[in-house]
Order: sequence, then C-alpha cells, then structure tokens
Amino acid sequence: MDFHALHHGDEPLLLPNAWDFASGALMAGAGFPAIGTTSLGVAGVAGKPDASGDTKDETIVLARRLARLPVPVTVDIEGGYSERPDEVGALVSELVSFGIAGVNLEDGYADGTLRPINQQIAMIEAVKAAAPEVFLNARTDLFWLGKGTLDETLERANAYADAGADGIFVPGAAEDDDVRALVEGLPLPLNVLHMPGRTDFVRLAELGVKRVSCGSLLYRAALQTAINTAFGVAGKPADHPVPSYADVQSLLEEGA
Amino acid sequence: MDFHALHHGDEPLLLPNAWDFASGALMAGAGFPAIGTTSLGVAGVAGKPDASGDTKDETIVLARRLARLPVPVTVDIEGGYSERPDEVGALVSELVSFGIAGVNLEDGYADGTLRPINQQIAMIEAVKAAAPEVFLNARTDLFWLGKGTLDETLERANAYADAGADGIFVPGAAEDDDVRALVEGLPLPLNVLHMPGRTDFVRLAELGVKRVSCGSLLYRAALQTAINTAFGVAGKPADHPVPSYADVQSLLEEGA
Repeated sequence: MDFHALHHGDEPLLLPNAWDFASGALMAGAGFPAIGTTSLGVAGVAGKPDASGDTKDETIVLARRLARLPVPVTVDIEGGYSERPDEVGALVSELVSFGIAGVNLEDGYADGTLRPINQQIAMIEAVKAAAPEVFLNARTDLFWLGKGTLDETLERANAYADAGADGIFVPGAAEDDDVRALVEGLPLPLNVLHMPGRTDFVRLAELGVKRVSCGSLLYRAALQTAINTAFGVAGKPADHPVPSYADVQSLLEEGA
Repeated sequence: MDFHALHHGDEPLLLPNAWDFASGALMAGAGFPAIGTTSLGVAGVAGKPDASGDTKDETIVLARRLARLPVPVTVDIEGGYSERPDEVGALVSELVSFGIAGVNLEDGYADGTLRPINQQIAMIEAVKAAAPEVFLNARTDLFWLGKGTLDETLERANAYADAGADGIFVPGAAEDDDVRALVEGLPLPLNVLHMPGRTDFVRLAELGVKRVSCGSLLYRAALQTAINTAFGVAGKPADHPVPSYADVQSLLEEGA
C-alpha cells in the first residue's frame, strides 16, 4: 500500500525500526506493512555516538539496503545532518531516487536545544520542494525535551504542517490528555513513540493516533538478548537488563 | 590477557560473536574477555548472502570498528575471500595492523565442497608468514558437512597444525566420543560450536575443549527478539521462533 495511505487507516501504523538489512527483511516478511530505521541502531552498528550528526553516510547506506524490501521504508535523518535547507533537500531527493518513501526530520539538537522554528520551516519547505512525493514526518522535540508547553508544541507542529509536512511526530506524548490534545489540534496524522509501561497500542488507536514508532527499543532489546544468550551458553545467569538509550550511547561515546 | 593465553585456561574461552560495534562493546563491557564476529551477522547487516565470499570489505569495516574495544577480537574471514594464499596473507596482515588478535579460516565452500587440503595448508602457511602473531583458528568443515570421518577430520586438523595453525575449530562436533577423540588427537586447543540442546558448556570443559563459539546464534536470537518486541508493541502474539541459519540466509538471498 502507498505509504501516505498507511497513515489514514482505522488502526495506527505500527512502525518497526530496523538497524540493518536482515532486521528489516525479517519484519517485512512477517507482515509489517512498512519499515522504519533507528538512528541509535545506525550509530550502534557504526560505533559512533547517536545524534552527533555524524552518521549521514551510514544512514544512506542502510537506506539503500532497505530500499530493496517489498514494503515502504521511512528513514530517520535526524536533523538532516546540515543547517542548510538545500543540502537537506538534496539528501531526501537522493533517498527518494532509490526508493525511500518517507523521512523523519527533527528539530531537536543533541545538546537539548531546538532549531529555531523559522529555520525548521525552511528545512521542511526545501525537502518538500526537492522531493514532493516523500512522506515528511516532522518531529518536534519541544515536549520530549521539556523545553515548552503542549501549546508551544502545537504551534510548532502546525507551522510544520503549513510548511508542507505530511505527519507530525511528538515523542514523549503518552498521557491520554496530551495525546488527545495533539490529535485534536493537528491537521495531520499524529505519530507517537511507544514507551514501555507508558503507552498502549489499543489506547493510542482509540485516541486517534495514526502511527506508533518503536524507536530504538527493538535494537536495544536485541542487544539484551544477544548478551543474555551468550551468558546462557556459558552457564551464567542471563539477567542483563534491556540497555537504555543512555547505556548504548555511553558505549558508543566510549568507543568513539 | 593475551589472546593466545586465553586458549589455555582451566575453562574454555566462551566467544560471543558480535555483528556490529555495539553488540561487541556491550559484551566486552559485561566481562567477556574476547569477542568474535559472525559472518552471518556481517552478511545480515549488509544484506548479502553469507558464505558467498562477497563480504570481505564489510568484514574489514566491522573488524576496524571492533578493534577499538579493550579486549582481543578475532575475525571470521570465512575461506579468506580468495584462492590466492598471498591475498589471504595480506588480508590478515592488514587486520593485525590495526589490532585484530585472531582469525578463523575455514576449508569449506558455500556449495558444500572442501578446499583441497594442500591448498588450505598453503593458505595457513601464508597467513602465518604474513602475520606470525595472529591466533589462526583453522576450521575444518569436513565433519560438519558430512564429507568425511572423524579420522579424516583429524588428518586435516593435524596437517593444519603442522602448517602453523594455533587452534582447530570443528563445528558440528558435539557428542562426547567425538569431542574426546578430537581433544586427544590434536596438539592444539579445540574449538567447538555451541549447539542449543546438543552441547553443554560444563561438559565441553570436562572433555577438554578450550574454546566455545556462539556462531550466528546471538545474532539470530537478537533478530527474534526484535520482531517479537514489535509484535508485542502492536498487541499481537509474540511467538516468532529464533530464525534458523537457513531462514536468515533465505532473507539475504531474496534481497540480493
């Protein structure tokens, strides 16, 4: 099915986030109608810190591999790896040229600050001018980073919609009231991040969410299983917890 | 500890096989004294069939990443990606130049045939001449492929030992009598592959095995967890089995 149409079904699009070809191929083969990527996974494979703006090449390589899958693929391009709208437009145009259906473009920086709203609007306009057919999921990190109210999140999100975004991603939105306010206040499909113990797929569907992302969870759970399987082979207690985002990021920063 | 010395301890070296930087870093951080790689994992990341001789570049890239870990790393170079001993020697010399401690070199081809013994001996001699300090784990696939008896396996393994190998890897050896015969018939540390339900670490230790590899198991278990976590997020039954080697290879061949 067309990737845009998958955001307008009765139930939310559950987007599993692949970190490599086989993880994406396995999920496509199991019936997931579209596949995403995880920037932490890309960083983890490469051994570079996540959100450092330093994994553009690796992201393109993964996108090329996943583009061979028989389902639509959407790519997390973080903040676009550049402050120049034309460069970000060129990147998305390149991704679309080999078959990528969508991108996530975020306004938060790794240091916890936000890209100025007018600059992010210019980015979104440039991307849609360069690749009109792409599904541009505009992520705003205001809420997630605790840098503003829900009203300010809606202000950014509506500006991104006016600039041509096709969907809005608000990671961190989990409480019923917050999710409801976002669904009601937005003209585009709302994407939220699954958070273990805090979000429930059925409830999110009832509230009108149109897309649920797994973020880095699948990759982190995969890492947990790998290490616990190794402990098990050695006859040792297999009790390693799922590494947190910060745990993995710390491994990558130490190794950098 | 020196990688060679790790093969002469009281208990076998349990080698967890990483498919990317983060999986290796996590296992090194959890106390595993050395890290291996899995050729299926390298192929899975890249989206190329395993054992096709087509992942030399990707193997070098992974080796460079893992070489930054604070523990010894040994790299599965399959059959050396070449029939020319000088080329295989040059590859291992390159790996050692950036800090890799060991390699696995196998005599089986993807089509189930075996490299002639004299050719494999020439490979081993060339590798040790090019990189005398490397721990060369010589893998023989005779037993595993059902192409010969245990005596013929011992004949190959002893010839590889005479050629300069530092360890012998006989995947498929699992029964007590087979493992015992190999330990007794070899002058070098014996490496076996962990096979779920067929091998037991404590028993292998009692029999005198010096190294136990996880092969592709950690990667395949990681893939299983990723897909079942995604099913769980969607509120669906999370009952995908661990994909077999053939399952993953099939995904990679379809995608190739």
